[in-house]
Amino acid sequence: MANQVQALYDFTGEPGTTEMTITCGEMLTLINTDIGEGWWEGRNSKGQTGLFPAAYVRKLSPEESTPAKMAPPAPRYDQADDWSDQQYNAGDNNYHKSTSHDDGWDDDWDEDTYSEIGPGVPHTKAMNQQAPLAPLPGMPIADYNNQIDDSTSNFSSVGTVRKSKFAPSSKVSGESYLLGTLNVEVPDSDKVYIVQEGDGYMWAAVSQPYNVTVASPKKESKFKGIKSFIAYQLTPSFNNIQVSRRYKHFDWLHERLQEKFTLIPIPPLPDKQIAGRYDEQLIERRRVQLQEFVDWMSKHPVLAKCEVWQHFLTCTDEKRWKAGKRQAERDNLLGLNYCISLVVPEKALLQSQVDHITEQCHTFVSSMDSSVKSVTNMCLAQTKRFQAPYKTDCQKVGEAFYNLGNALSLDEGTVISTSKLTSAIKLTGGAYIKIGRMYEEQPKYDWEPLGDKFHLYKGIVGSFPDVLANHKAAVQKKRECERLTAEHKMEVAQLNEVLRRTDVISYALLAEINHFKQERTVDLKATMQKFLRQQITFYKKIVDKLETTLHQYDE
Amino acid sequence: MANQVQALYDFTGEPGTTEMTITCGEMLTLINTDIGEGWWEGRNSKGQTGLFPAAYVRKLSPEESTPAKMAPPAPRYDQADDWSDQQYNAGDNNYHKSTSHDDGWDDDWDEDTYSEIGPGVPHTKAMNQQAPLAPLPGMPIADYNNQIDDSTSNFSSVGTVRKSKFAPSSKVSGESYLLGTLNVEVPDSDKVYIVQEGDGYMWAAVSQPYNVTVASPKKESKFKGIKSFIAYQLTPSFNNIQVSRRYKHFDWLHERLQEKFTLIPIPPLPDKQIAGRYDEQLIERRRVQLQEFVDWMSKHPVLAKCEVWQHFLTCTDEKRWKAGKRQAERDNLLGLNYCISLVVPEKALLQSQVDHITEQCHTFVSSMDSSVKSVTNMCLAQTKRFQAPYKTDCQKVGEAFYNLGNALSLDEGTVISTSKLTSAIKLTGGAYIKIGRMYEEQPKYDWEPLGDKFHLYKGIVGSFPDVLANHKAAVQKKRECERLTAEHKMEVAQLNEVLRRTDVISYALLAEINHFKQERTVDLKATMQKFLRQQITFYKKIVDKLETTLHQYDE
Repeated sequence: MANQVQALYDFTGEPGTTEMTITCGEMLTLINTDIGEGWWEGRNSKGQTGLFPAAYVRKLSPEESTPAKMAPPAPRYDQADDWSDQQYNAGDNNYHKSTSHDDGWDDDWDEDTYSEIGPGVPHTKAMNQQAPLAPLPGMPIADYNNQIDDSTSNFSSVGTVRKSKFAPSSKVSGESYLLGTLNVEVPDSDKVYIVQEGDGYMWAAVSQPYNVTVASPKKESKFKGIKSFIAYQLTPSFNNIQVSRRYKHFDWLHERLQEKFTLIPIPPLPDKQIAGRYDEQLIERRRVQLQEFVDWMSKHPVLAKCEVWQHFLTCTDEKRWKAGKRQAERDNLLGLNYCISLVVPEKALLQSQVDHITEQCHTFVSSMDSSVKSVTNMCLAQTKRFQAPYKTDCQKVGEAFYNLGNALSLDEGTVISTSKLTSAIKLTGGAYIKIGRMYEEQPKYDWEPLGDKFHLYKGIVGSFPDVLANHKAAVQKKRECERLTAEHKMEVAQLNEVLRRTDVISYALLAEINHFKQERTVDLKATMQKFLRQQITFYKKIVDKLETTLHQYDE
Repeated sequence: MANQVQALYDFTGEPGTTEMTITCGEMLTLINTDIGEGWWEGRNSKGQTGLFPAAYVRKLSPEESTPAKMAPPAPRYDQADDWSDQQYNAGDNNYHKSTSHDDGWDDDWDEDTYSEIGPGVPHTKAMNQQAPLAPLPGMPIADYNNQIDDSTSNFSSVGTVRKSKFAPSSKVSGESYLLGTLNVEVPDSDKVYIVQEGDGYMWAAVSQPYNVTVASPKKESKFKGIKSFIAYQLTPSFNNIQVSRRYKHFDWLHERLQEKFTLIPIPPLPDKQIAGRYDEQLIERRRVQLQEFVDWMSKHPVLAKCEVWQHFLTCTDEKRWKAGKRQAERDNLLGLNYCISLVVPEKALLQSQVDHITEQCHTFVSSMDSSVKSVTNMCLAQTKRFQAPYKTDCQKVGEAFYNLGNALSLDEGTVISTSKLTSAIKLTGGAYIKIGRMYEEQPKYDWEPLGDKFHLYKGIVGSFPDVLANHKAAVQKKRECERLTAEHKMEVAQLNEVLRRTDVISYALLAEINHFKQERTVDLKATMQKFLRQQITFYKKIVDKLETTLHQYDE
């Protein structure tokens, strides 16, 4: 029974993957705890096997042999607030590759991503104390108890929020904005302008452009090294002060942004499914995808200046961080209500024109969605092809030549000297083996960065249908108001206000459509050029290698 | 029962292939007659399925429903003597790709290769008339009967000679030469010299070097086009007169050469297993391998001047052909007896030195045999990789980019012009699809010629163990004679003659070992250089294609 675990929460496995759906209280037999990334493999009572998050189950003691339906205990203990180490110490080079997987990386990435500063998940002290999970292996009891006492705010319910998406609440439906019942004064500094450019409308450009670098992630630790985690070092160009952020902070930020901007696609965070054979590779891929995220944020005229992002980018003080966090979570200019911050051209929009553009956008986005996914998949497939069969094929070629050279060297000398030839043939073999290794190395220069870029596009494009739906809902509300006015159930003055505000929402959509177009036109060009240059360099390297080899045959 | 056939002969399927062993009289159910190259697929009574030569079975008429063990009937009718069309008419451009497989190509290549001018297969007129197979489809009965009457000499037993190897007979054991009982005067013009060069011994060089080109094969026909076959056009440089030879003539020649030269590896004829998806490709590969065969022949000091080869290369007259053929088949200087033509240095060889060289050769040849086979297999594998997965992968890359360009083109124009970018991305897609086709085309420039060359080496190297064994047998005979002399059972004078003649045989072996070494040293160098140049050209073409594509992104 040592291999028996009990599900603490419901978990819905993603269809078509190796994930398995488990139900709270269900008994499972452990098959493999060595999956990594916080996943375990098990078998349920029906004999089905699959992966589930390790944190969603508890190991049973030998005594607990009779499966019993239990009330779900309180969620797993999360590491203590690590915000104190948020400011990265530049001299601190404490990144060490750990051989253990119990290093906080998994849960940092996986279940804990919504913890600590996450919103809306109810948790009480009582609940926390009900049945906390065992502390991490190797943690002294005293430390553990300490943490229980002072880390109340760090508990989160891992069982309910995974894969949660922002669900609209009354606070963010935008009806109060649309109907003019929202009475908020937006300070001038927070106002966002939409301007006409040619036939179209654009967000007013970022007044002070900046960029942010995401530096090589460092493994940091706390509790005297017992608990370690990966932190990314962000340096904005406007102040050159580095801040250290964990994935869970990114994730908290991402939720705030998604709540607030329902007409602006928020760039995606790194793909949880990134494959990497080495931790270093995995961490680097995540860094690249985080860099894509911050690049997109910094270049977006609205997102680049929004308060929560600025707070995330610059805050180095724990007290100020908490204050900013509370303020962000109290923000009531969410969803369509955010539009009260917008200053748009006076001109009323033609509904027919807006409809035409949104329909075209809809068509474009559906087509783009499938082609962006296909580029992403293709990059993944090519990476695998380069790293396995292409490499292996080259090595087989190399081995065949090398063995030929070896065979020939058994009959060298005497009458006709063949040593020059046999050595050239062996070198040819070596060259192909080397080319095989070049194939293995290559994806990190072309297919992987291309895939990372298209991960970004997949996220942006995938958010557009929601953006269009949010806009459509506003247009429908407007039509409803028009009907009410026709039926004399609404004042003309109020309708005019609704019309005006619907126009603001449409202006925002049009500006966002154009922003995406402008960004991708510049960005995709640079992406394709960079990709092609890397490909050219690669094939040139093969040519060079083969030319050097050919010269071995010269007299 | 229309699909029932009966085996006319025993056929032993090669283990590990799709071939199936069938036994004379056995009933089989036909599964597929569309295999090509003279093979059919069937199922035996045990339910086993596999391929067997179509010529080894007869189709049963609907009446013959009861399987009955029959005496094997006479072999299948072979096409009439086509020697009259041996001289290729340069103006005759009658090569047409036939869509039918009943065009005489299959049997020309396959079962009939040993027919017509093949030796030693007993056949009588009575046997021929016993139960001839049905004529080829579409052949008028009158023609068919005519042929039966005038083509007696064209029957051969296909059931007994397939895959036959030269089996030594008393005529070729060489004992008569070794024991000095062979009394033949070799005219000076036929004498072959072995000369000392440095520490080693070599065949005296070809006095008048020449080469022979094998031109694009032509499909020729007879019986007013009912029967057609492939003929290869050979032009020796010494007279520039083209002769036309079918595969069966090559095959006859090859048997003569193997009978005559048991100390010289005879280059192999084309691989029967050559894979080609189109007939043209198949025919061209065979031509290339025949070119390798004639090149090796023409460069070999002994083979290049031997009578049967000269006859094969130059005879354009039917009567003279038949006379030459009879003469070649009556040749009694076969096997070791051929050594009577050799003129070697006076110096007696040290047996220990000969033993050392033959042992080294044995070691070298075993190692070479496996590495040559591995290069051959590698070339075949690479050809397949280039033509299928590599091509497909490139095309998938191309399609992903092309579809991306297509998606982007749905949102062109208005505020930001993206047409330049979308067109560049589509062109990038096109470039990768083109590169895919380049991969498909490439093997005929590098992997296939390399494979053809190593097919030659596989044959040569594969013959060396027999060569070494033939030499070893002579040395053992010599030792026996030494023992007999020690026991006073043989005269010292006769022993001295045996010793002298064993030395001649050893000189021949040493000369041949050195010849192979000399040839391969020059030839492999040229082969590898040619191969590498083709590879370089290929990867340069990819670089060019990608560079052109990259320029599409320029403003």
